Amino acid sequence: MDLNLLNEKVENAIKNSEKYKTKGNVATYIPELANVFEDNFGLSIVTVDGKEIHKGDTDLRFSVQSISKVISLIMALEDYGKDFVYEKLGCESSPYPFNHVNTITTKAANPFINAGAISTTSMIKGKDSKEKFQRFMDKMKDWSKDKDITFLEKVYHSEMETTDTNRALYYILKSKGIFDLDVEDVLNRYIAGCSVGVNTYNLAYIAAVLANGGKSLDSNEQFIESDNVKFTLAQMSTAGMYEESGKYQMSIGFPLKSGVGGGIMGVVPGKFGICTYSPRLDNTGNSLRGIIVLEELSKELGLSLFE
Amino acid sequence: MDLNLLNEKVENAIKNSEKYKTKGNVATYIPELANVFEDNFGLSIVTVDGKEIHKGDTDLRFSVQSISKVISLIMALEDYGKDFVYEKLGCESSPYPFNHVNTITTKAANPFINAGAISTTSMIKGKDSKEKFQRFMDKMKDWSKDKDITFLEKVYHSEMETTDTNRALYYILKSKGIFDLDVEDVLNRYIAGCSVGVNTYNLAYIAAVLANGGKSLDSNEQFIESDNVKFTLAQMSTAGMYEESGKYQMSIGFPLKSGVGGGIMGVVPGKFGICTYSPRLDNTGNSLRGIIVLEELSKELGLSLFE
Amino acid sequence: MDLNLLNEKVENAIKNSEKYKTKGNVATYIPELANVFEDNFGLSIVTVDGKEIHKGDTDLRFSVQSISKVISLIMALEDYGKDFVYEKLGCESSPYPFNHVNTITTKAANPFINAGAISTTSMIKGKDSKEKFQRFMDKMKDWSKDKDITFLEKVYHSEMETTDTNRALYYILKSKGIFDLDVEDVLNRYIAGCSVGVNTYNLAYIAAVLANGGKSLDSNEQFIESDNVKFTLAQMSTAGMYEESGKYQMSIGFPLKSGVGGGIMGVVPGKFGICTYSPRLDNTGNSLRGIIVLEELSKELGLSLFE
Amino acid sequence: MDLNLLNEKVENAIKNSEKYKTKGNVATYIPELANVFEDNFGLSIVTVDGKEIHKGDTDLRFSVQSISKVISLIMALEDYGKDFVYEKLGCESSPYPFNHVNTITTKAANPFINAGAISTTSMIKGKDSKEKFQRFMDKMKDWSKDKDITFLEKVYHSEMETTDTNRALYYILKSKGIFDLDVEDVLNRYIAGCSVGVNTYNLAYIAAVLANGGKSLDSNEQFIESDNVKFTLAQMSTAGMYEESGKYQMSIGFPLKSGVGGGIMGVVPGKFGICTYSPRLDNTGNSLRGIIVLEELSKELGLSLFE
Repeated sequence: MDLNLLNEKVENAIKNSEKYKTKGNVATYIPELANVFEDNFGLSIVTVDGKEIHKGDTDLRFSVQSISKVISLIMALEDYGKDFVYEKLGCESSPYPFNHVNTITTKAANPFINAGAISTTSMIKGKDSKEKFQRFMDKMKDWSKDKDITFLEKVYHSEMETTDTNRALYYILKSKGIFDLDVEDVLNRYIAGCSVGVNTYNLAYIAAVLANGGKSLDSNEQFIESDNVKFTLAQMSTAGMYEESGKYQMSIGFPLKSGVGGGIMGVVPGKFGICTYSPRLDNTGNSLRGIIVLEELSKELGLSLFE
Repeated sequence: MDLNLLNEKVENAIKNSEKYKTKGNVATYIPELANVFEDNFGLSIVTVDGKEIHKGDTDLRFSVQSISKVISLIMALEDYGKDFVYEKLGCESSPYPFNHVNTITTKAANPFINAGAISTTSMIKGKDSKEKFQRFMDKMKDWSKDKDITFLEKVYHSEMETTDTNRALYYILKSKGIFDLDVEDVLNRYIAGCSVGVNTYNLAYIAAVLANGGKSLDSNEQFIESDNVKFTLAQMSTAGMYEESGKYQMSIGFPLKSGVGGGIMGVVPGKFGICTYSPRLDNTGNSLRGIIVLEELSKELGLSLFE
Repeated sequence: MDLNLLNEKVENAIKNSEKYKTKGNVATYIPELANVFEDNFGLSIVTVDGKEIHKGDTDLRFSVQSISKVISLIMALEDYGKDFVYEKLGCESSPYPFNHVNTITTKAANPFINAGAISTTSMIKGKDSKEKFQRFMDKMKDWSKDKDITFLEKVYHSEMETTDTNRALYYILKSKGIFDLDVEDVLNRYIAGCSVGVNTYNLAYIAAVLANGGKSLDSNEQFIESDNVKFTLAQMSTAGMYEESGKYQMSIGFPLKSGVGGGIMGVVPGKFGICTYSPRLDNTGNSLRGIIVLEELSKELGLSLFE
Repeated sequence: MDLNLLNEKVENAIKNSEKYKTKGNVATYIPELANVFEDNFGLSIVTVDGKEIHKGDTDLRFSVQSISKVISLIMALEDYGKDFVYEKLGCESSPYPFNHVNTITTKAANPFINAGAISTTSMIKGKDSKEKFQRFMDKMKDWSKDKDITFLEKVYHSEMETTDTNRALYYILKSKGIFDLDVEDVLNRYIAGCSVGVNTYNLAYIAAVLANGGKSLDSNEQFIESDNVKFTLAQMSTAGMYEESGKYQMSIGFPLKSGVGGGIMGVVPGKFGICTYSPRLDNTGNSLRGIIVLEELSKELGLSLFE
């Protein structure tokens, strides 16, 4: 990938998306999520050979929200293996919103709706709740090479106070025998995971590790088993953008995962990881300007896996 | 792609799948579909540089069934453009079976369930019904370089006699204003399209054209606009295998489309087209042995787009 | 029933409902239905001992619409017996609108949504389509003692032109093996039945026959088997007012059937039949002022079966 | 009502139902419910003028289960009034099983599925949890004139251990703003209410009070406001027998409420209350032999409100 070309296309795409700066609305169903500068925009790219591009608000910490579901899926896969995980979990996208009870039939539709991430969260190993969450934080820190990642207390508390829908999903899953754990343990860790504060650099770096087949960018360490990377990217492709996942595989064409905090993480296998941040969302809950930028970049650079 | 290696892996995969030879059941809801040799198996590969591998029953004509939905989508895209087509049609996979009324909300969920293909069929241009279908047949013949492709009368008549569910889907779509055409015209062409007799060679060849960005393999002709190829492959990835599309992107990882006739067409972009034939289906309607072979090949050759 | 008291309460109820005269909207999904005087109101009562009360526009012919579903159910019960009819048909109210595809599971939810009435229409005997419909008309004429009842051509044609949703319902039912008849025969008769022009007198008279256990009011003739009356009234009670049937059993408390033409037919067993006409509908499709009047009458006169 | 005739018909109905003695199965999803003599049968009738008929196991205490939902509805109506209650609650029967998440849309479908009874339970007044439940128990004791009614500890504990589905329903309702109470308070009282041990005499007596318009049978006390009786009986008619409520209004034709403990309570307004007990259930969860007996009685004695 020619970094100069990439840089130029990125700058163009950001400039061309200026007109969307004030389109869409920040998430408000979690009160604390509304406390952001609505018009911020940041974009980071990290290539598999370690080069970087950063534009705009790339230091700003925002809550990772649903993008954490990628981490939980990977950890569940690493801790229990694909067969076990997908006995407890479906792998198909759902036409229902991410917190809808109908995203559960005999099990959660996929790991990237809330019920699915509650399921994967229940499959993270550790001797107790604290260790389980510590392992989750450590993975994020290791993979992003950022020891300063922490979780945003205010977002966490705001989210815990409005999490009755997730409690309902938890009990539906529990009543179907998916797991038998303490509700507050699982929900706490699930919400805490959503409340981790990241910047676009962090997520682009993690995405680059995924683009690199799970291998560290600067050592020979295999952070994530390559098969688990493959499964995860496939799931991001078919179910990463809520009920519009198919749409963005047509227009962008590589694995994506968005969060209602405003981030979108993208992985171009073998090439680079990318993350955009823009907290105004469309009706489905995806970052509106982020999508516009990713669509232009994909088109201009031929990034779709399907061409 | 090393053809010798490919050939060796194909032979291994077929051999290893022998034990699935008698697993699954041929489709019977269309009576004529039951009239096949249940244990037949064929596989063809055509690479973008024109090399070929053929194993087993690759001359046998079977009915293309839902794989024709790929052709209809491409023609609708070429005739009316993406924006128009996706005003009439969704692009998301559906958890409901391919002929279920709930695959329609305000419009059909995607082009690869029956309601969606009825929609794309309604968007194929021509001065009359005959010309519209002739154009469809001509495309299949041109893209596969096989002028002898014809449609299987018996399958067609058998299918027309049991097509009340499709009539229902047609009228639901019509009542929602998706189109206003003669029911028998659209259904006839839809069913006739499903009844086209193809062999694995034909479909692998068409798939190779898609793998080649829509360009003819032996001339400079751009059969299909490259953007339309890209959109079509993305749709095959997210919705090509009915309600198990996500599952096979994890285990196989490239665009696929199956038909209840027993065929599965796969496209490895930039590399090759592939088609398997094995008429015994699993419960979702996908060719059981075909999947087994494709899974092994993908794994052995690293064909997943997600690694 | 004291006729003077009844008369007084009726006059009060009508007067008190004046303020609802312009509330609600006439049905427009069938264009011809919009061609009425929106503010008309009529009410007729016929007691089982043959006394009558008529107020307002009681001579005006309006289209019977869904109230015809009562006649079709009775005829199916008389022609084929309860067991056969309810093998083809459910008997439970549905939360889905009257023409929604989800009112059908393995069969239509009940005889009073469209799919159910299409089912009962298919079970009316006759040597051909003409005779079947003639028998339907004859029943309405006989039971109402009005030989001049006819069907409204304009409504019929308007409705046939916009009946694709019903065609869809027909084919869903057909594909489930509920019947195997000519679509145009069944739909024609179904729509023609909806298009019969009646006045409140007619329907109050038919309702009085039902209130009288199926017996003619002025002869000893048993028009309808008493068991079939009982079954029909039970169905009107649990499913007669679309997806608000339960609500009106609380507030009115006797068997009711409404039509989007603006009529509501009510049966107070052993006492009288009643019909209101007021074409402005609420969101569920029930006549808004008709309900207001019936609620007051029920309350004032203690007409609920549940007190 | 001629008591001799009634007695004779009751004896016949019980005798004729002998062949159903071993049909159906006791509920097992709550383990303790399986600990009953499966073939027991009891029937009690109490007329509005205080006469009684008792046959079979009428002293046996069984858990009231869903029949308690009638008491909760009445108390909510008495404590908060119809308008408030039905702002929080629907009044339509549901095609989904009694504990299905789809029985909730914006609110619970009706007071007689679990979500609905959880809603009414949340609307019982009292200064604390203890007083709220005490009031519930007192009502049951007062209305049945049986001070010895108690609740069955074992059933209660068994049910609390398997109540995750109800917890899910609780949180779905809470997240929709139906109430904001302590989960364990509401669920404890809901389950405790279901676990009350009653015999057929108790429930027939309470039903007789309802048949008597809410008035005590032996004093002039108006136990329940007559309008609330009317609303409750209407709801029992349209939604009292789970997703087969319509069916039994056709064949039995008066307000009914069943419980998975094996009881069915029926009210023939102005005449008598009735209760059958037989713990073997059909697939919908209604007492199989109880229904058979009630159907024969209704037919033989013309008890349907719809004839």
